[in-house]
Amino acid sequence: MCSFEKCWLNYACNEMSSKYAGIFKSIYSDFDGTVTGNTIAEIKEGFGIFFGKEPVLLEKQANMCDGIWLKQYEKSDNKAADEFEPGTEGYSIYYDGENQLIVVAASGENGVMYGVFELLRIIQSGRDICDINICHAPKMPIRMIDHWDNIMGDIERGYSGDSFFFKENEILFGDRTKAYARMMASIGINAITINNVNVHEVESYLITDRFLGMMKKYSDLFVSYGIKLYLSVNFASPMQIGGLGVCDPLDDGVIKWWNETSRHVYEVIPEFGGYLVKADSEGRPGPFTYGRTHADGANMLAKSVSPFGGNVVWRCFVYNCKQDWRDRKTDRARAAYDNFAGLDGQFDDNVILQIKNGPMDFQVREPVSPLFGAMKKTNMFLEVQAAQEYTGQQRHICYLVPMWKEILDFDTHASDRGCISEIVSGKAYGNRLCGMAAVTNTGDDANWTGHDFAAANLFGYGMLCFDTERSAQDIAAEWAACTFGIDKEIVDNVCRMLIMSWPAYEKYTSPLGIGWMVNPSDHYGPNVDGYEYDVWGTYHRADCKGVGIDRSAATGTGYAAQYNSPWRELYERVETTPEELLLFFHHISYDHVLSTKKTVIQHIYDTHFEGVEDVERMIGLWKALEGKIDAARFARVLERLTVQYESSKEWRDRINTYFYRMSGIADSKGRTIY
Amino acid sequence: MCSFEKCWLNYACNEMSSKYAGIFKSIYSDFDGTVTGNTIAEIKEGFGIFFGKEPVLLEKQANMCDGIWLKQYEKSDNKAADEFEPGTEGYSIYYDGENQLIVVAASGENGVMYGVFELLRIIQSGRDICDINICHAPKMPIRMIDHWDNIMGDIERGYSGDSFFFKENEILFGDRTKAYARMMASIGINAITINNVNVHEVESYLITDRFLGMMKKYSDLFVSYGIKLYLSVNFASPMQIGGLGVCDPLDDGVIKWWNETSRHVYEVIPEFGGYLVKADSEGRPGPFTYGRTHADGANMLAKSVSPFGGNVVWRCFVYNCKQDWRDRKTDRARAAYDNFAGLDGQFDDNVILQIKNGPMDFQVREPVSPLFGAMKKTNMFLEVQAAQEYTGQQRHICYLVPMWKEILDFDTHASDRGCISEIVSGKAYGNRLCGMAAVTNTGDDANWTGHDFAAANLFGYGMLCFDTERSAQDIAAEWAACTFGIDKEIVDNVCRMLIMSWPAYEKYTSPLGIGWMVNPSDHYGPNVDGYEYDVWGTYHRADCKGVGIDRSAATGTGYAAQYNSPWRELYERVETTPEELLLFFHHISYDHVLSTKKTVIQHIYDTHFEGVEDVERMIGLWKALEGKIDAARFARVLERLTVQYESSKEWRDRINTYFYRMSGIADSKGRTIY
Repeated sequence: MCSFEKCWLNYACNEMSSKYAGIFKSIYSDFDGTVTGNTIAEIKEGFGIFFGKEPVLLEKQANMCDGIWLKQYEKSDNKAADEFEPGTEGYSIYYDGENQLIVVAASGENGVMYGVFELLRIIQSGRDICDINICHAPKMPIRMIDHWDNIMGDIERGYSGDSFFFKENEILFGDRTKAYARMMASIGINAITINNVNVHEVESYLITDRFLGMMKKYSDLFVSYGIKLYLSVNFASPMQIGGLGVCDPLDDGVIKWWNETSRHVYEVIPEFGGYLVKADSEGRPGPFTYGRTHADGANMLAKSVSPFGGNVVWRCFVYNCKQDWRDRKTDRARAAYDNFAGLDGQFDDNVILQIKNGPMDFQVREPVSPLFGAMKKTNMFLEVQAAQEYTGQQRHICYLVPMWKEILDFDTHASDRGCISEIVSGKAYGNRLCGMAAVTNTGDDANWTGHDFAAANLFGYGMLCFDTERSAQDIAAEWAACTFGIDKEIVDNVCRMLIMSWPAYEKYTSPLGIGWMVNPSDHYGPNVDGYEYDVWGTYHRADCKGVGIDRSAATGTGYAAQYNSPWRELYERVETTPEELLLFFHHISYDHVLSTKKTVIQHIYDTHFEGVEDVERMIGLWKALEGKIDAARFARVLERLTVQYESSKEWRDRINTYFYRMSGIADSKGRTIY
Repeated sequence: MCSFEKCWLNYACNEMSSKYAGIFKSIYSDFDGTVTGNTIAEIKEGFGIFFGKEPVLLEKQANMCDGIWLKQYEKSDNKAADEFEPGTEGYSIYYDGENQLIVVAASGENGVMYGVFELLRIIQSGRDICDINICHAPKMPIRMIDHWDNIMGDIERGYSGDSFFFKENEILFGDRTKAYARMMASIGINAITINNVNVHEVESYLITDRFLGMMKKYSDLFVSYGIKLYLSVNFASPMQIGGLGVCDPLDDGVIKWWNETSRHVYEVIPEFGGYLVKADSEGRPGPFTYGRTHADGANMLAKSVSPFGGNVVWRCFVYNCKQDWRDRKTDRARAAYDNFAGLDGQFDDNVILQIKNGPMDFQVREPVSPLFGAMKKTNMFLEVQAAQEYTGQQRHICYLVPMWKEILDFDTHASDRGCISEIVSGKAYGNRLCGMAAVTNTGDDANWTGHDFAAANLFGYGMLCFDTERSAQDIAAEWAACTFGIDKEIVDNVCRMLIMSWPAYEKYTSPLGIGWMVNPSDHYGPNVDGYEYDVWGTYHRADCKGVGIDRSAATGTGYAAQYNSPWRELYERVETTPEELLLFFHHISYDHVLSTKKTVIQHIYDTHFEGVEDVERMIGLWKALEGKIDAARFARVLERLTVQYESSKEWRDRINTYFYRMSGIADSKGRTIY
């Protein structure tokens, strides 16, 4: 494996180091499991660097002082919130100044570990610990990372090198594996699927003895960091590797095959999390082949793992991927709802539906999937994509936390507690197994994420799963301080770059929610007609008069009616559709006037010029940090910013030229359009 | 190697068989070389099938009769033309009815062989030999086939399977190699380059001892069929395989390296034809790197082979392939002329410039390259592409002989004898080494060319090189008879399909000479904007008002001025530009009225509907032959016709939709445009 860096775990001395130097000499612990072992190691490393001396683990004693106490939580440890229920993963942290003792109290060792990681971030980002007083429990019960790593070592939609799990049909295991588990634990991740949802032939064997020994090693490592191992499985495994003639979920032989296979998996790995399944999607096999429902398919698998406490995560990314561009009735955006909404209540309680944030596929701007507002008796995951497939592929900076926050804050109006964050945390309707999943953006590049700034998305994802109330700005600032140092100009400039990046990317790429103006297959760079005449259901329908898809119920595809009121009424009409989604819901004339008093065509021109100017500003902000950031990382980021700048100009010119040629309407400001 | 079929050498009994059964029992020959050996074998096989009994080679005698005489040509053998000079490859054929003796007379054994193959075609296509009286000499001195086969076994722009020359860095040699040499000889080919002009690393070693032994076997085989072996070479060979630091053509070390390398090649293969070179093109190395001219580069190589009678074929496909789509000044169409016209007279006399038929790249319609009309003191090849890269990739029928005839008939007005056929045959200015080269369309598919009908292009290419006066219809009829049998309905329908195919393809694809509306990279199927914003210099510049490139001298790129008068004046003005090239030379409003009284936009709609109807007609013509053609070939062709039909509809709908959306002008006939 390649050498690797530490990202936000880049512990470094700062002002607090001298203030508390030499004080924290001791570690006391009420816990002693493997997680606690890793937690104590983390304290030793962090405190050793911060305060100049590695603390020592001591037996508990009557007068504990000058150290840190990993404490079994009691009601009296709640020094902050009136109501606080730590559950199995929450914690409180406070400072007993008299005894110079930091207390991290939790009900279990995972909570203690998360508390310690938060404490280390606090110190690392230069905040004083003397008035620390935190009660913190994760919002999302399951906080999952999905890898699209293939066993050959390549990563589907990977922009940071190759897999560090797999290489040429073998499993890798080493220092980097451990470093990765630690990094994920540090941001609160408690479930990881290590292989691609597109399960090819060899990957199908991951749940067999050919690979289970190595999977057990992975699981042991993960468990020592509070993480459950999940595997993507091939729904056709009974045929592919079991020698059966069918994979019909109601077939007795198939049921028996899965029951035996799962029992053996749990024999080897009792702590195994469960299966992730992409079925009946983009050519993958599934229950549709046998006239069965997704509930039939998911429940059959779920029953095979439920005796052992396992779960089945079932993706809802099911749509017709052989569409005819001439067909204006079929609407890919409708597909998840049409396929799943009617099944609410039919899924076993260890099944979780994993639903992409939007109805299409991780575009820079989409409405929130209406499926979230359509089910109450079903466990759901909100799936987001940290991998920047459609958002610059980690060659561009595009900080996605603000987008994710908008999604989490979206009120489905399905009930009084219809916010996405309430629904997918399970709190709205008391569903037990809920949470979020992120398609991750890591690879074996030295810095893990290709672009150094892309790590902010991974970090931010973990932070947001834990606490959906935290601001994108606050997360950005903490990441910047932990990654590049606490110098104010660094933190300020890096934050500004991050916060302006998603809006900038949206400006110079795809206007008003239309999406998909990218090169086919690789999804990088502009190509307005790239998907316009293809089979994927991804069209803009631009003509000389206007652009956009009519998804109203009255005259369009009816997608708007999949939302609860008042959204269905708001999206139905041009006048009440949020403008950032205007072209997603309606076909609009170029001369339609927006709330800014600009026409649509002028909006397109203006935002595309502005987007490039935003990139220029980002470059300026970064260049101002020269000398404050180590030369290697400074140059690495600057190089990618230069790529982003060139690409943003290409986007600007191609989009503007396309719409100028199409509409014949000149830019009111007379700028160059080719 | 796979099994293979016989294409047009599908000898079969016909009406003539009974008429002449048992007559031709003897073969007499004035020649006895290896070519003659193959010629006699061909007579035995052909006559054996046609007349039921294999003839026997006899010693010549006073009263030769009841057979065929391969005769040394004398003036008295000219029974037909007043003036006939057989040269080294011409022949006369006549029938001495009294002695029932067919005479094939030539000055050398290659001529005899070509005469025999023509005789066999005559018999095979059911024409009576009793009044045969032919004097025939090839128009083109060199009739070359260029393979784009790579040594790994793939074929660049190959649509008929893999290479039958190479596989996984090894050279293949077997029955198919011999069958191929025979097939090429049967259509008069006398030069074959067996490897791709894009010479990759391993191919660079073809001219070294690593492969020369096998190349000698190839050359021996080819020579026995009158064919010279050529190899594509890497201009950077002195660096790539010679260990030198440069490949500067004026560098003494480089000159020495090539002299020694060529001397060794000719030591091993005295009959070796020479080198084919693609230099300074699409990333290939060349003399430009060192500030040298193409003449410097070509002459250096030419001097290394001239002591041994070798030639250097130098391609003129040199252009800027990193263009900016925003740049409207640079014009790829100008490139060949701009790079080479000024070098006329500077090339050694064993250098041949190989010039593509048009200024772009084998589009379905292009003007003839102006470079042909700009040089008189230079050997030139006309390069055409039998491989249907841009013309349906052998999934569509597109008979290219009519296109090639138009090109050969084009009068450059460079002189009294300015026709392309006169120039590239060398007859116009007495240039010795001239001719044609075709990028071939063969592979290891059983039928050699993927689509059975694609063989008509290969066959037709050979026929046309030999006799540029022959009609496309006549060639088609002979090919149909030799391939499928002499039944009148077969020949009629196959001919009609062939003759209508190029116009049909032009109709449903790219209108009025604009070209390039294809999917990038693979060049199959419609994609109007596929190349519009790319680096290749291939644009249509469509906007809501009109479409086309202004290549006039007055307001455009000046390309029109590269032609001699009166073409330069004719192409300069919209009114006098041939309409099939209108959009190639001018940006034209959609409402511009053509000579048909139709507007440009209506012409686009009408031709696209007509093109699909033409394909429907072709399918009807083929289906009418069911039962007359063997079932396997019937089904194979029908399957591809079905593919062509679906593809033609996709072309029709995408092109029509694109221009309808762009222009906003409805079809006057109210047909469905999406």
